[in-house]
Amino acid sequence: MDHRLASYLAEKRGVVDAAIDKLVPPEGSEPDILHRAIRYSLFAGGKRIRPILALMGSEIVGGRYEVAMPVAVAIECIHTYSLIHDDLPAMDNDDLRRGKPTSHKVFGEAVAILAGDALLNLAFEIMTSESTLRTCRHDRLLKATGCLSKASGSFGLIAGQVVDMLSEGKRVDRRQIDFIVKRKTARLIGASLQCGAIMGGASEAEINCLALFGEKLGVAFQIRDDILDHEGNSSELGKAVGKDEQRGKATYPSIMGIENSKTMMNEEIVSAIRLLDEFDDRAIFLRLIASYIGERSS
Amino acid sequence: MDHRLASYLAEKRGVVDAAIDKLVPPEGSEPDILHRAIRYSLFAGGKRIRPILALMGSEIVGGRYEVAMPVAVAIECIHTYSLIHDDLPAMDNDDLRRGKPTSHKVFGEAVAILAGDALLNLAFEIMTSESTLRTCRHDRLLKATGCLSKASGSFGLIAGQVVDMLSEGKRVDRRQIDFIVKRKTARLIGASLQCGAIMGGASEAEINCLALFGEKLGVAFQIRDDILDHEGNSSELGKAVGKDEQRGKATYPSIMGIENSKTMMNEEIVSAIRLLDEFDDRAIFLRLIASYIGERSS
Repeated sequence: MDHRLASYLAEKRGVVDAAIDKLVPPEGSEPDILHRAIRYSLFAGGKRIRPILALMGSEIVGGRYEVAMPVAVAIECIHTYSLIHDDLPAMDNDDLRRGKPTSHKVFGEAVAILAGDALLNLAFEIMTSESTLRTCRHDRLLKATGCLSKASGSFGLIAGQVVDMLSEGKRVDRRQIDFIVKRKTARLIGASLQCGAIMGGASEAEINCLALFGEKLGVAFQIRDDILDHEGNSSELGKAVGKDEQRGKATYPSIMGIENSKTMMNEEIVSAIRLLDEFDDRAIFLRLIASYIGERSS
Repeated sequence: MDHRLASYLAEKRGVVDAAIDKLVPPEGSEPDILHRAIRYSLFAGGKRIRPILALMGSEIVGGRYEVAMPVAVAIECIHTYSLIHDDLPAMDNDDLRRGKPTSHKVFGEAVAILAGDALLNLAFEIMTSESTLRTCRHDRLLKATGCLSKASGSFGLIAGQVVDMLSEGKRVDRRQIDFIVKRKTARLIGASLQCGAIMGGASEAEINCLALFGEKLGVAFQIRDDILDHEGNSSELGKAVGKDEQRGKATYPSIMGIENSKTMMNEEIVSAIRLLDEFDDRAIFLRLIASYIGERSS
């Protein structure tokens, strides 16, 4: 990874971790097991890509990154809830996530379901808490909450999860895999930049441009993930490799092969980067992130 | 039931049903199974008590009931999601709800989990949708969303569910049953009136008064439910009777006996009604509802 990008991400990750720690109820809050389960998954080693993109969405349009912090933390809560519920026995039935036992393995299935529910709910508590209302512009908060809730709803993230699950073990065509990846991965990544830009005071044109960049980044990210699942090495990824295939999960490589998937990923990255032209030098780190997606091995 | 109250509730129920039908995505929206599951549970014969209370919260402070409609529908979505997740095999493992097969019995466990997630999410989509933003005051919307998300979060509804579940089959004391009932039932009923009052432009004093009335109503409602579970008749209730007891669920009757529970319920109702004094004749239907709670047999 480019060393400027590495230190930029490390710094922002620290800032995001501190904000999550501050905005999420502490362990020991009653009921203790629920709040421990919430923090267990939130601090299980995520890379904080989505919240960092939200902060970048604000900075790139000239806003302070702090005004995007509530939405950044809210997005990480939504991402984390979706992983907990994805891993459940009734869904993907995964025992490990990032090398650690999944929530239902540690806390039991019922608490894992409720911890996921609580994290989804917490996203909206954070967006509309008294302290957020004191520090953020209300019109922007409402717009960002609307945008985020759409991306995570029954036409967004949850739609992707439903179709992904129902297509397991079945023949899936290109239209279906596009549907799944757009909703399950790309829309929330797009919404991260979009909501950050809204909080930073972006114009409609800037908001739409960053949302589209984020969606393309998300598609590329997912293809890279699927390629790594085929080719990668289990200890670097912190999860079992080849599992998607064993389970009959629909992925780009399974439909169009590795080489075509790489080509598609690179095209998404190139067209994503092209969308950043109007932001000139302000988009340097977004360009570096987009380039890195194509190369990452974990 | 008082005939004025019966016709008032029937009329408002029709208005709420129409609003739910309008604000919730239609069947056939992709993914079809998810949207069918959402509507299956939303239209499974609920009495719409919470949304009706939200509309009443607005009317009683002089607001039009329409301004409280988004929050009314959002609350019914949250109530419905909590029932779907409560009924799951990993939780209460119920096959019937209001005499109909539960969501996971009809759609499978994975879709039931996701339909619950989607309903919780939908509550916040509705509160911040473009059409809601066009018709409701933004400051009130943010405040009501904050209030609702707190009531349904990890210190509210979900806290109650966690403690309720973990206390199954264990000796539970009065403090714990108070904790469970306040959070699992009373707070969302309180929030219904509170959020309706916020949307209708109530003063802080009015908001707090109606929230407290609603919480007392909720406690009384839950005690009545538990008494019915002990005494009631299965076909009237649409669910198995005595099930709480078989399962070792903590209830007021199991801790303090039927007679003391009835006394406590009546005290809650009397002190709730006393809170309505300042609203004079405007509170007639709230008083009738509170009185009815003590008498209902289904």
